[in-house]
Amino acid sequence: MKKLINAIDAVILEQMEGMALAYSDQLHISTDPKFIVRADAPVPAKVALVSGGGSGHEPLHGGFVGMGMLDGACPGEIFTSPTPDQMYACGLAVNSGAGVLLVVKNYTGDLLSFETAAELLHGDGIPVRTVLVDDDVAVKDSLYTAGRRGVGATLLVEKIAGAAAEAGASLHAVAELAQKVALHSRSMGMALTSCITPAAGKPTFDLGPDEIEIGIGIHGEPGQRRIPITDADRVTTLLAGEILDDPPYTRIVRSFDPESGSWVEQKLTSAPFQPGDRVIALVNSMGGTPVSELYTVYRQLATLCQQRSIQIARTLVGAYITSLDMQGCSITLTRVDDEMLHFWDAPVKTPALRWGV
Amino acid sequence: MKKLINAIDAVILEQMEGMALAYSDQLHISTDPKFIVRADAPVPAKVALVSGGGSGHEPLHGGFVGMGMLDGACPGEIFTSPTPDQMYACGLAVNSGAGVLLVVKNYTGDLLSFETAAELLHGDGIPVRTVLVDDDVAVKDSLYTAGRRGVGATLLVEKIAGAAAEAGASLHAVAELAQKVALHSRSMGMALTSCITPAAGKPTFDLGPDEIEIGIGIHGEPGQRRIPITDADRVTTLLAGEILDDPPYTRIVRSFDPESGSWVEQKLTSAPFQPGDRVIALVNSMGGTPVSELYTVYRQLATLCQQRSIQIARTLVGAYITSLDMQGCSITLTRVDDEMLHFWDAPVKTPALRWGV
Repeated sequence: MKKLINAIDAVILEQMEGMALAYSDQLHISTDPKFIVRADAPVPAKVALVSGGGSGHEPLHGGFVGMGMLDGACPGEIFTSPTPDQMYACGLAVNSGAGVLLVVKNYTGDLLSFETAAELLHGDGIPVRTVLVDDDVAVKDSLYTAGRRGVGATLLVEKIAGAAAEAGASLHAVAELAQKVALHSRSMGMALTSCITPAAGKPTFDLGPDEIEIGIGIHGEPGQRRIPITDADRVTTLLAGEILDDPPYTRIVRSFDPESGSWVEQKLTSAPFQPGDRVIALVNSMGGTPVSELYTVYRQLATLCQQRSIQIARTLVGAYITSLDMQGCSITLTRVDDEMLHFWDAPVKTPALRWGV
Repeated sequence: MKKLINAIDAVILEQMEGMALAYSDQLHISTDPKFIVRADAPVPAKVALVSGGGSGHEPLHGGFVGMGMLDGACPGEIFTSPTPDQMYACGLAVNSGAGVLLVVKNYTGDLLSFETAAELLHGDGIPVRTVLVDDDVAVKDSLYTAGRRGVGATLLVEKIAGAAAEAGASLHAVAELAQKVALHSRSMGMALTSCITPAAGKPTFDLGPDEIEIGIGIHGEPGQRRIPITDADRVTTLLAGEILDDPPYTRIVRSFDPESGSWVEQKLTSAPFQPGDRVIALVNSMGGTPVSELYTVYRQLATLCQQRSIQIARTLVGAYITSLDMQGCSITLTRVDDEMLHFWDAPVKTPALRWGV
């Protein structure tokens, strides 16, 4: 295994310390329990956004903490959910009294931890809401998930809802907008190579020299299928086809109701993409693929969207939601309206996403 | 070889097309000869900055084209210098009459092409200056270079001089500032793995599973030495030590004089770093190393700088000057004063570097 790390059991802590040193004017960290918060948290009268999940997907989530996006992030061990006490402590640290929105990717472990944290925060009298992100069209269920996995849409939820919170929106409004962004998003990824976790020191899965995995998860969990290696245009057409042709998708979303202090279930449906839609397009590296190759993917994606009269209103091309050193890419499309574009364009200042300031 | 590309002879063109589609409001491209320019070029009364070099180092240079940085960039084939006609055509496209500064990394092929382009532009009555970037402390000469190679400092030269040009500085002032940034910068890199070029389809060099290469070049050309694999702190201490302990470095810089239309040689010296210096620190991925590992490197770099009473005033951590999919990192430190920090902080809007706008 070749990685720029020191002791394996210190990997997450040292990466957090490095990030805190690199952005000492923007971020503070707690090391026990582990979380990362805005240096100015809690921001008076502002709804706070907290996310988290297993490490290994950097810059997600710690790299999205800052003005206009997340107030706090809780990194678990590599590919392992953070614990409820991390999320609870982080929620307490960022709560200004205006409420806390927990952004949860749909993985069983994350759900359990965030549910406990929501109840603990509610028990302290803090208004709490949750939003579920489950945008991966590749598989119905997976190794770690009932229903679709949460992947690239997480960035869009955190950016757009984070901007609304920064603008003074209520907890209810921020949560509804966040859920809308999640429902309007679809993603799919692929792997050229496996990732290598520091603890294992060898590839998480075996992929032959002439094979690629379509519909890969961000933890190296199996995708939809393996196919012989092919060119970037065909890969892009495969991924974009699954996203653009995905039929209406209905799921039961369980979310925390701050009024009753209980969990409510709602049937929510993602409408399919249609001609005339405007979208934000994210072309994402799985970590080991350089940005140059992503532009070749974007080129074909733009062609496919144009053929279907789908207008790409904004783009983001880079490594944002990764799987350690895995080579490969993912595509996320989010249908947007004027309000969502307004909040997308709003100023943001985080390690990984910055503009307007 | 596993890469997201189509036909090998179309790699550069398709990446350029993808970038132009992704940033259609910011960038325009010419495909014959190949160059990338700001959509609003030529910007009236503004000194224009043009750079270029072999492809494979993305986002350098095309990703640095835009408001506050480069006006144009000329990508060669992978690891191959662009041709004089590319640079000449690009210079013509961005020239507003206020003059053109050519930013040249110290590689023999780049120097030859830029020299011819400078003379051609001068022949058309365009005021031209050149700046040489040679910041790599690893080796005295290399496979492709007499003297030190130009690496990470290129980003700092382009950002700081680009901001000065945007603010209306004269060609003379922009060129002098650019040369100052280059002289105040030192870099060194290392590789965990080789890169793979599309044309070769196999690793450029062999590096054993327990070996790393210290002082690697950005084309996979040999570095300073091979050592057994070690941890991130030791790697960082090695690289930072060579940078921070580098004695005064004197070289002859050949630059174009727009008054006489001839080449002048100047003996220029880089002073060593000293306690009390303020620096901008760039921790850069060689392409295949994810940002999480760079934070571990930054953590140790911050400690080393603090021990020497060197104040890191600004940081940049990410993949900016790469070598395709090579795993590894480089460190660049640039001594700054108030003027340089002012221009570093100035707004920039390019695909790879954006803030303040």
